[in-house]
Amino acid sequence: MLPIRLAIDVTSGDNGPRVILNGILEARGLTADPFVVYLCGDGERIGSLLEELGVSESDRRGRLFIEQCSELVSPGEARSRVWRKRADSAIIHSVVLQKQGKVDASISAGDTGVLLSAAIFILGRHRGVKRPALAAFLPTTGKRHTLLLDVGANLNCRVEHLVGFGLMGYSYVKKFLEISQPKVALLNVGTESTKGTRTLFEAAKLLATRCKGYAGFIEGSGVLQGEADVVVCDGFAGNVLLKTSESFYPLARSLLGKKPELAEAIMNNLDVLNPENYGAVPFLGIRGIVLKAHGSSSQRAFANAILAAINSVKKKALDLALNPGWEGLKLR
Amino acid sequence: MLPIRLAIDVTSGDNGPRVILNGILEARGLTADPFVVYLCGDGERIGSLLEELGVSESDRRGRLFIEQCSELVSPGEARSRVWRKRADSAIIHSVVLQKQGKVDASISAGDTGVLLSAAIFILGRHRGVKRPALAAFLPTTGKRHTLLLDVGANLNCRVEHLVGFGLMGYSYVKKFLEISQPKVALLNVGTESTKGTRTLFEAAKLLATRCKGYAGFIEGSGVLQGEADVVVCDGFAGNVLLKTSESFYPLARSLLGKKPELAEAIMNNLDVLNPENYGAVPFLGIRGIVLKAHGSSSQRAFANAILAAINSVKKKALDLALNPGWEGLKLR
Repeated sequence: MLPIRLAIDVTSGDNGPRVILNGILEARGLTADPFVVYLCGDGERIGSLLEELGVSESDRRGRLFIEQCSELVSPGEARSRVWRKRADSAIIHSVVLQKQGKVDASISAGDTGVLLSAAIFILGRHRGVKRPALAAFLPTTGKRHTLLLDVGANLNCRVEHLVGFGLMGYSYVKKFLEISQPKVALLNVGTESTKGTRTLFEAAKLLATRCKGYAGFIEGSGVLQGEADVVVCDGFAGNVLLKTSESFYPLARSLLGKKPELAEAIMNNLDVLNPENYGAVPFLGIRGIVLKAHGSSSQRAFANAILAAINSVKKKALDLALNPGWEGLKLR
Repeated sequence: MLPIRLAIDVTSGDNGPRVILNGILEARGLTADPFVVYLCGDGERIGSLLEELGVSESDRRGRLFIEQCSELVSPGEARSRVWRKRADSAIIHSVVLQKQGKVDASISAGDTGVLLSAAIFILGRHRGVKRPALAAFLPTTGKRHTLLLDVGANLNCRVEHLVGFGLMGYSYVKKFLEISQPKVALLNVGTESTKGTRTLFEAAKLLATRCKGYAGFIEGSGVLQGEADVVVCDGFAGNVLLKTSESFYPLARSLLGKKPELAEAIMNNLDVLNPENYGAVPFLGIRGIVLKAHGSSSQRAFANAILAAINSVKKKALDLALNPGWEGLKLR
């Protein structure tokens, strides 16, 4: 098997390049799959950090490549144009490398909006996709994980966007988790058909006819119980749900901290809830594999992000165009 | 002290009148404050249930009164008109008793929309309030609880509604938790000022000038960490956040169930997360004390709902008009 080739934006994220590089080194020990990494960022800084971390020139050879990027994206810049204006920034360059066929997937902990517009304008969307979505797997007490989308790329959604998320989520989970017919649900404030907004009523009607796995509404309380395999919502509600559920692990740790003798034993049991285990989340609907890592990602989170990228490349689950019935899909 | 007088809708809720009556009896043992209850519902059924539960006529005297209600609200009825059309239903009658000055507060586990419109049309709103809000206290790892509003009464919110929620929440928490200047935050997908929707940007601008305690944006991950005393959002996001956080307790229990020897000790420590401890949530902005209990409320949840009602009556925290500066407030 040829090694999987990844581009990683080393400049973004709240914790600095050292944490990211350590995450990459940690990932080596976690997978048997060979992979090479293109490190996008300030070449000189990356070089000296690698030296500090004890990675010699010969260790690097054929496994770690430095891609010099000189520009930085500042928070105020218009997100839709930044992919062109800051082509020499690490976040944009990591996507460009994918377009050039140099890598199979890219990972960045940078701004969601910047990364999404780079993905849309550089790699393009799958046919029929109006709005690509950021999707996250959540741990559940059910048999398997649940895919939640959108989790922050599309804050205001119209009916057709929600329907598109449902179809993309269905297609992705079917391949990625190898389920024959994933259960798709729409997030709502109640499961009764009379509760919710007009947008949700219409999306429900369309999904019922267009999406094989559509199973109705789901409440916030049902998501982590694994009541559905795919949960569809706008990016605002999804972001709130994702981040709230991520806060449960530190919350439990803090509550148990008063009894340290219990804490360790328990936290091992609750480890499924640890957000560090879920390193990065994919954009669905993009012609390529672009993963978004949390801004606050730790070393372990980056290591897991790399595993997620490798898995995505191997399973081809993001190649939605390959899914029967998808190509012909036309949404208003 | 005169006993506090409560009206309770015994017909609503998923678990039937027996659970509600048991909750009322349980509450007797949990508070030293004397209280009397007006039981709204099918008088005959309530009478025979009380007998079954071993409550004699003399036990009831001066403490439990039956208010015969013959109608039921069906799910399909228009919520805005049902308060007039179904005046003889328990959910509506419990609010009417408050208007008549017979009780100090009312509790129902019925439909949020029906209860809200009954509260608005029968009791009226405080001056300056466009949209009353359903508010819930969430447990946090911080020093105290956090008030989240709206949690489901207003699914679509405009700028002025969010600003109103911030002002009402500030006023309520100041009195209820006796904090001199509660910290108010707007729920968003990031804390940076460039992230979010236009509605949020405008609400942030207005809150910054009108609400003393306004402290900026908060993410879903910060809420249960107690980063703010009041968290403002539309009812859709609030409902999702509330229900997701309520699912943590059963989630932890289910994860720990594999190790029963650990489970009990741990769950006692995590009990602050148990939604049963938070029996019912108030509508803010209403001229009266109307509490909404969860449809799925257990006996313990109803007992705690009664304690919440007693507390609300004693602290007069919902009497927002008494708050200096509130009366003069005019929102577009």
